[in-house]
Amino acid sequence: MRVGIIGGGAIGLLFAAYLGKNNDVTLYVKRQEQAEAINNKGITLHEGDSCASTFIRASSKMKNMTEQDLIIVAVKQYHLDDLYEVLKNIPSGISLLFLQNGIGHLKLLDKLPHEQIYVGTVEHGSLKESDHAVAHKGKGRTNAAVYRGSGKRLMELSRCSGDFPVEMQPDYEVMLLEKLAVNAVINPLTAVLGVRNGRLLEITEYEALAKAVFEEILLIYPKLNGVIGFDEIKAIACRTGENTSSMLADISAKRQTEIEAILGAALEKAEHCGIPLSVMPVLYKMVKGIDHERRKE
Amino acid sequence: MRVGIIGGGAIGLLFAAYLGKNNDVTLYVKRQEQAEAINNKGITLHEGDSCASTFIRASSKMKNMTEQDLIIVAVKQYHLDDLYEVLKNIPSGISLLFLQNGIGHLKLLDKLPHEQIYVGTVEHGSLKESDHAVAHKGKGRTNAAVYRGSGKRLMELSRCSGDFPVEMQPDYEVMLLEKLAVNAVINPLTAVLGVRNGRLLEITEYEALAKAVFEEILLIYPKLNGVIGFDEIKAIACRTGENTSSMLADISAKRQTEIEAILGAALEKAEHCGIPLSVMPVLYKMVKGIDHERRKE
Repeated sequence: MRVGIIGGGAIGLLFAAYLGKNNDVTLYVKRQEQAEAINNKGITLHEGDSCASTFIRASSKMKNMTEQDLIIVAVKQYHLDDLYEVLKNIPSGISLLFLQNGIGHLKLLDKLPHEQIYVGTVEHGSLKESDHAVAHKGKGRTNAAVYRGSGKRLMELSRCSGDFPVEMQPDYEVMLLEKLAVNAVINPLTAVLGVRNGRLLEITEYEALAKAVFEEILLIYPKLNGVIGFDEIKAIACRTGENTSSMLADISAKRQTEIEAILGAALEKAEHCGIPLSVMPVLYKMVKGIDHERRKE
Repeated sequence: MRVGIIGGGAIGLLFAAYLGKNNDVTLYVKRQEQAEAINNKGITLHEGDSCASTFIRASSKMKNMTEQDLIIVAVKQYHLDDLYEVLKNIPSGISLLFLQNGIGHLKLLDKLPHEQIYVGTVEHGSLKESDHAVAHKGKGRTNAAVYRGSGKRLMELSRCSGDFPVEMQPDYEVMLLEKLAVNAVINPLTAVLGVRNGRLLEITEYEALAKAVFEEILLIYPKLNGVIGFDEIKAIACRTGENTSSMLADISAKRQTEIEAILGAALEKAEHCGIPLSVMPVLYKMVKGIDHERRKE
């Protein structure tokens, strides 16, 4: 399959390195320098002690995306707005797969003319090591579901994803919300408190806060009742106990966080529906403030 | 006047160094080692570039407190319970002055048999430099008010406090709550966010959180309406902008915080009165969790 991937971050590189083995992949990146590095050296994929290279095409020109069957959009949610003009101009017959966290990006998808739009959640751990190298830190899978149209290209992707499983999910909303619940409980708290994931279970007061966030999420998205329980989120925090959450990593590296994607849309919905909250708005303001401090420095 | 001071921390040393100039002062401390250091070397008081010594009596025996006119209790609120037996056995004719933060300690005062009980708030900045040295970091004053009985010994203290002003206040509750409001707004937020006081005004989201805490305090203690406004708390945060709050300093030094004194009693009252809160309970749990982490290490 001809697959375009937009975004030269950890997720874009990871998808290009894996999908490039069995597909005709073009990676679209922002900087010409990164495109050249990838075209000259391929993408180096580190996994445990092993190391492999995949040679794919890279381009810093966002034009001429007409030759693809599927385009995977692998930029952070907060970069989607800047990409809107590019996306709008992709021929509407090309299928698009969006990999952003949260559900805030669905509003943008509604404005696109494309016939097939898919959304996905990524369970892999990955770390960008250089412009052309990525480490696969935790093997997981990609979940994907139809947002609009038929699932044709998604099924095709699922079939030819090889050792990088892409699993079709029946309900895009449940799929996105499940990931959102996990992110909402683990990310802001670990980021504000400056602790690794496992600490949320070791300290009674932290676990109480995590539980309170989860209960607020259920109030906002009652559809999640019975789909995911707090015990499952605890199990994830336990399994990833030694890890630094992506939001804490962003804060430590003074990068912008994904707080808008993870809590922004949920808080908007809560306000719209008049749902009284306590913990989430505090965490939201704290992380927004930390983001704000970063920009001041 | 014969003044006993209980507590060899920054506040106890500061009071002993200043009041020792014009009064017959005995400082009661926990460790024999500290008592010996003070008896041998006096208390060294650093203020700006100047340095002076006051010689007073120090003792690690909490017995024989019968010879005092006034005893100032200068331990943290969380150490008061341990001191209860000692306090109870001080002859009830001796006046007591309590300098703890918050209002949580009033419950304990109600159980004491003494005829004259005073409470005070300290506006000085002080830092314990060694067992017998203290730095006076910010000159302020001590406010004091009658909690029970007559103000006789308090007026006497106020008269002979010299260059270390002790001002009589008419209403102990308003006085304590005013200090509590300032502490509740500035301390937990700066502690959790790891920022100096001034940051609360520089970052919009932090200021919004500070304001939310202040409004919750007003809901819990409506008596403060018209007594202190958010602008006054902002002025204090601004004046102390470069300072690290005492709670952040405690956390950085992995010491126990005063979160119970500062938010504990307020939250109890809110729960008792069914006042819905959002920000304070979150800050409380976060700081309690940080305290909990410290004990685990």
